[in-house]
Amino acid sequence: MELLEKRIQQDGIVKKGNVLKVDNFLNHQMDIALFNEMGKEFKRLFADRPVNKILTIEASGIGIACIVAQYFQVSVVFAKKAQSINIDGEVYSTKIESFTHKRVYDVIVSKKYLGPEDHILIIDDFLANGCAVNGLISLIESADAVVEGIGIAIEKAGQMGGKLLREKGYLVESLAVIESMDDKTGKIIFRHN
Amino acid sequence: MELLEKRIQQDGIVKKGNVLKVDNFLNHQMDIALFNEMGKEFKRLFADRPVNKILTIEASGIGIACIVAQYFQVSVVFAKKAQSINIDGEVYSTKIESFTHKRVYDVIVSKKYLGPEDHILIIDDFLANGCAVNGLISLIESADAVVEGIGIAIEKAGQMGGKLLREKGYLVESLAVIESMDDKTGKIIFRHN
Repeated sequence: MELLEKRIQQDGIVKKGNVLKVDNFLNHQMDIALFNEMGKEFKRLFADRPVNKILTIEASGIGIACIVAQYFQVSVVFAKKAQSINIDGEVYSTKIESFTHKRVYDVIVSKKYLGPEDHILIIDDFLANGCAVNGLISLIESADAVVEGIGIAIEKAGQMGGKLLREKGYLVESLAVIESMDDKTGKIIFRHN
Repeated sequence: MELLEKRIQQDGIVKKGNVLKVDNFLNHQMDIALFNEMGKEFKRLFADRPVNKILTIEASGIGIACIVAQYFQVSVVFAKKAQSINIDGEVYSTKIESFTHKRVYDVIVSKKYLGPEDHILIIDDFLANGCAVNGLISLIESADAVVEGIGIAIEKAGQMGGKLLREKGYLVESLAVIESMDDKTGKIIFRHN
């Protein structure tokens, strides 16, 4: 998606350790007009899929998921990190390792909001090693629901998460795929295919 | 807001300890069509305020804030709980005590996304004792930005947070104000004034 690639080139900052900071527009400050364009594009890419719910994970997936949901006219469920006294006992749970935070989270979804009748589009801001998406797939499979597709804002091709998901047969659509980036020059190269 | 009150009556569950569970439509599963109606109502209530940015706090404020932002045509910034390696050193920070989770969080906003030029509308899902909102106000004041108003989905009048904020002169608009609720009968009484 050209608009997103341009924005990454303009406002993204490449940091040491293969980190791309896009907190100017994607996951701290959020450009809602851009999210709407992303929503239209995801709707085009998943037009033939019978999506009835979007699943994401807190926190930075929530904003994108809610705007995207308007184009599918469906509700959003977000998986929560760690137990809250406000969640009933009846939950699906899994463990997810965070690349960004270098720790393992317990992630839960109430059984009330995920079931065999659901056809799920997973939405998230980043796909790198795929830990978050694989955790969400595990929750969906626990509920006997169907993964209709996986929509990602920015995929980092070097970290293989997307490749492995596609090899397993999942439909993964990433709006920008980063082939490589250089923290010394700030140069970002995108993959197109 | 009648639509929200009806939804709370229909799907809200009153639990012991003065807890109202609305995770069916507000803060776990999210009804985006309802959020759009809330966005229109907030725009009506804050129509004369020169809002140029919405500030919320992760996680459950983000979805509402993003949908509401469309009616103000502004960006959203969400305050983050605890330090991430992806946030630059230059942040405003404060401590917030969570009523739901019974713990104290460090909450931060990058100095890049909050400054003296900003006129902020705070959006959150709940207002009870006001800890979260007061923390956001503290971040805004650290940045010499202006609090234009505070928009809340559900206010629990018994916990005084809203009363104290109004006494300090802030414009607080809550779409549903709970006067009282009974976990034995499930009865919820709303305040109208």
